[in-house]
Amino acid sequence: MNRRIGFGDTVLLYLDRKRRWLVKVSEGKQFHTHRGFIELEKIVGKSFGDSVITSTGDKLYVLKPTLVDILNFFERPTQVLYPKDLGLLLLKLDLEPGKRVIEAGTGSGVATAAIANAVKPSGHVYSYEVNLEFLNKARQNLSRLDLLKYVTLKHSDARDGFDEIDVDAVFLDLGDPWNVVSKAYLKLKGSGTLASFSPTMNQVEKTVSMMKKDGFIDIETCELLLRHMRVEEGRFRPETRMVAHTGYLTFARKANREDPEV
Amino acid sequence: MNRRIGFGDTVLLYLDRKRRWLVKVSEGKQFHTHRGFIELEKIVGKSFGDSVITSTGDKLYVLKPTLVDILNFFERPTQVLYPKDLGLLLLKLDLEPGKRVIEAGTGSGVATAAIANAVKPSGHVYSYEVNLEFLNKARQNLSRLDLLKYVTLKHSDARDGFDEIDVDAVFLDLGDPWNVVSKAYLKLKGSGTLASFSPTMNQVEKTVSMMKKDGFIDIETCELLLRHMRVEEGRFRPETRMVAHTGYLTFARKANREDPEV
Amino acid sequence: MNRRIGFGDTVLLYLDRKRRWLVKVSEGKQFHTHRGFIELEKIVGKSFGDSVITSTGDKLYVLKPTLVDILNFFERPTQVLYPKDLGLLLLKLDLEPGKRVIEAGTGSGVATAAIANAVKPSGHVYSYEVNLEFLNKARQNLSRLDLLKYVTLKHSDARDGFDEIDVDAVFLDLGDPWNVVSKAYLKLKGSGTLASFSPTMNQVEKTVSMMKKDGFIDIETCELLLRHMRVEEGRFRPETRMVAHTGYLTFARKANREDPEV
Amino acid sequence: MNRRIGFGDTVLLYLDRKRRWLVKVSEGKQFHTHRGFIELEKIVGKSFGDSVITSTGDKLYVLKPTLVDILNFFERPTQVLYPKDLGLLLLKLDLEPGKRVIEAGTGSGVATAAIANAVKPSGHVYSYEVNLEFLNKARQNLSRLDLLKYVTLKHSDARDGFDEIDVDAVFLDLGDPWNVVSKAYLKLKGSGTLASFSPTMNQVEKTVSMMKKDGFIDIETCELLLRHMRVEEGRFRPETRMVAHTGYLTFARKANREDPEV
Repeated sequence: MNRRIGFGDTVLLYLDRKRRWLVKVSEGKQFHTHRGFIELEKIVGKSFGDSVITSTGDKLYVLKPTLVDILNFFERPTQVLYPKDLGLLLLKLDLEPGKRVIEAGTGSGVATAAIANAVKPSGHVYSYEVNLEFLNKARQNLSRLDLLKYVTLKHSDARDGFDEIDVDAVFLDLGDPWNVVSKAYLKLKGSGTLASFSPTMNQVEKTVSMMKKDGFIDIETCELLLRHMRVEEGRFRPETRMVAHTGYLTFARKANREDPEV
Repeated sequence: MNRRIGFGDTVLLYLDRKRRWLVKVSEGKQFHTHRGFIELEKIVGKSFGDSVITSTGDKLYVLKPTLVDILNFFERPTQVLYPKDLGLLLLKLDLEPGKRVIEAGTGSGVATAAIANAVKPSGHVYSYEVNLEFLNKARQNLSRLDLLKYVTLKHSDARDGFDEIDVDAVFLDLGDPWNVVSKAYLKLKGSGTLASFSPTMNQVEKTVSMMKKDGFIDIETCELLLRHMRVEEGRFRPETRMVAHTGYLTFARKANREDPEV
Repeated sequence: MNRRIGFGDTVLLYLDRKRRWLVKVSEGKQFHTHRGFIELEKIVGKSFGDSVITSTGDKLYVLKPTLVDILNFFERPTQVLYPKDLGLLLLKLDLEPGKRVIEAGTGSGVATAAIANAVKPSGHVYSYEVNLEFLNKARQNLSRLDLLKYVTLKHSDARDGFDEIDVDAVFLDLGDPWNVVSKAYLKLKGSGTLASFSPTMNQVEKTVSMMKKDGFIDIETCELLLRHMRVEEGRFRPETRMVAHTGYLTFARKANREDPEV
Repeated sequence: MNRRIGFGDTVLLYLDRKRRWLVKVSEGKQFHTHRGFIELEKIVGKSFGDSVITSTGDKLYVLKPTLVDILNFFERPTQVLYPKDLGLLLLKLDLEPGKRVIEAGTGSGVATAAIANAVKPSGHVYSYEVNLEFLNKARQNLSRLDLLKYVTLKHSDARDGFDEIDVDAVFLDLGDPWNVVSKAYLKLKGSGTLASFSPTMNQVEKTVSMMKKDGFIDIETCELLLRHMRVEEGRFRPETRMVAHTGYLTFARKANREDPEV
């Protein structure tokens, strides 16, 4: 059976594809939309997937927020990765429960959350950020998802290197990833996975050059374009507008410089 | 410390971006490439990330296969999802350890494996396939990844419905997904996630119409284009050729038809 | 030497990539922008490429409008073709001075103008439109480009057929092109070129089926995606947003049904 | 009436979308395909659009070659522009009969031919090429299209500058276009159009910087992606593979450096 919703739960109130809200079910509170309001206590006892009717007679669906729903509501002081990029990133970093991952550039914590979700409960993320304001925002965002216990947030410059050793994967989400490639190499396990996300070609060019120099192999750079379709019966067509660019993803593997037995 | 490689381990032998092989390290065996051969026992005792030299003096890196590496070597009687599609699929289905998922259309088991990997160790995949040959191939592929314990393979037609109830997510990878949408609705939890993958616009058109009729909401259809970049210093450009189409991904959420308390 | 600008000339006043205006140089008139105004007579005697300073000290360049500049300022009661689509259309229709072309669906006259410009001075366009309001708007737009003499605008339903015979090319820009394919076949020269532009997949599906049935060959359908780049030194990247879809272009050639000599 | 085909005519023999040949109708010659052969004199007296039957009973359509058909058969010692790029290029250069155009980098003459075709009969193209072998190949290619009379081919390095003055448009198709931007500026009319085609981001970056420095305005860089559709009734889908990159197109307009009257 489905669990009933109670006070303290966070729900996604869904009006339509463009209008949805992440709301905490609190006692004695109202939630207002441009289509009327609801008393939040009316949600208590409902199951996810049920609906409530607003004061103007409009229907709001009460959904269980997915990870992507919640990431969409993260406060974002910085540019963030979109689900299209995050999905490929998690696969190519080869994450699964138990993996230990370094992230350089916490930003708002969007990638941190997705990575933590993929390695929990037995894995861990060590995330470095120089900007204290970003770090605090990320902490707040991650606690909302109850993921903070799988993450160590570090107020430190990734260019000064990392404390952890023998990690399974490193993700660079920095303005100057090329300055951190060598630091990542030092702390990765042999054969470990490295990924970097950058909006400009120039950043990628410098970063890939450094990866080659440092002994990374299987280096590949790609971009992902996501296009939505407007699906109406007899009138199927792509949407009129789309996001043309978020950033380039670069992936690589660590090759050991010399064989230990030699 | 990194674990040393032993007999029985499966390794990825990497020559360059285009030439790589998934190999089981067996006693007394050689592995032949067009760049010479190696005695596989030379790999024993090495760490992942080390290299071996072939009889022609070429260097082969010994990497730990990632999930994506192994999926690339699945025997594929059917069309398969690419990592670009799989990554977004896993995120949008909102998978994490513990989730219970129905898959209709096991095919070669590529998506089955990726889903199982995302919900393990406490979750489970129930995968339906009418074609016995595909099912056997998928079983073989999944056992290679040691994921069979998280998957129940069912030789059964998804159009006849599913046995499980209250599952968290359903994935349709069928030629006629529209015929299974109602069956999926019945067995999904309220607010649960549904996804479908289809190569043609006509399949999507029918499937989305059925989703709307059946009470799914938040329906979206998209396609993902992945373009590789050729990154050489001073000569950065996209690759000359790319895969132009794999399929359309459609995502939806289950809205309950009537509120239980009414 | 460059010609000097005089009263009556139409010029493009260019402030930056996003702000430009098509202006007729008239006596005693001012032209106002959010960056000050200019007396239009200050432009008289200048050469194209020169600049004028507005009342707020901003610089406006005085450019000779290109065909594309002018098409961008057409009044558009209907959806129009973009330069990316127009360029390929003109090439694939194989237009050059002297060709005779039928257009079904004048709309605002954007394609009409581009086609007329390509076949002038010795060729001609016969353009059919049922909507009188559109036709009048197109007439106005075409006269602005001084192209009316190469165009016969017909207030007539293309589904009733065309008056001209042995034309070199036919362009269909209609909501239901499949209903006009047979009419186009009748009036095209053997080996003549046919093109159709449609926003939805369903329109293309029906139109291509009809083309096959009617004896067209070399049928191809494509879409064009144009992405702008943001080129700043050291920060090269694609623009963040783009037009994701305008329409599908379908091209075909007329094969004669039976050889005349048989 | 359609003209009858005679000896000396060049025709396009069309078997299907992938197999087509440009053939000169000569006396006493056979044309062989993997689907049998035909006596070329059997074509004489036919109209374009008719068909001939090969020795194996297969049907070959006899089409009048379009400009694009012929460009596809140019001998190509160098990389060439595709129709998608050529179409936009011709529009943005604002070509029409009478325009005078400089091209730097004749290559195989593909762009030269398309430009000549657009400015004929009263316009002219001045095309510069340092590589004599390319120039000879281009001459041969252009004569095949009967376009040589509208083109002056110059065996000269564009970096040494151009002889013509007050041209309407300049097109740069060079490995180092940035070295020729200033030369183009000198010879363009005020407000004239400049275009450049380059495969790498680095070339574009340098070229655009030089354009800005030199006094060009309205600078825009874009790429065009063309995707074919596989249109079968009930099975509409994009093709599986596509060309992912040809090159970036950059367009600009010449702004005069100082107003003549100052």
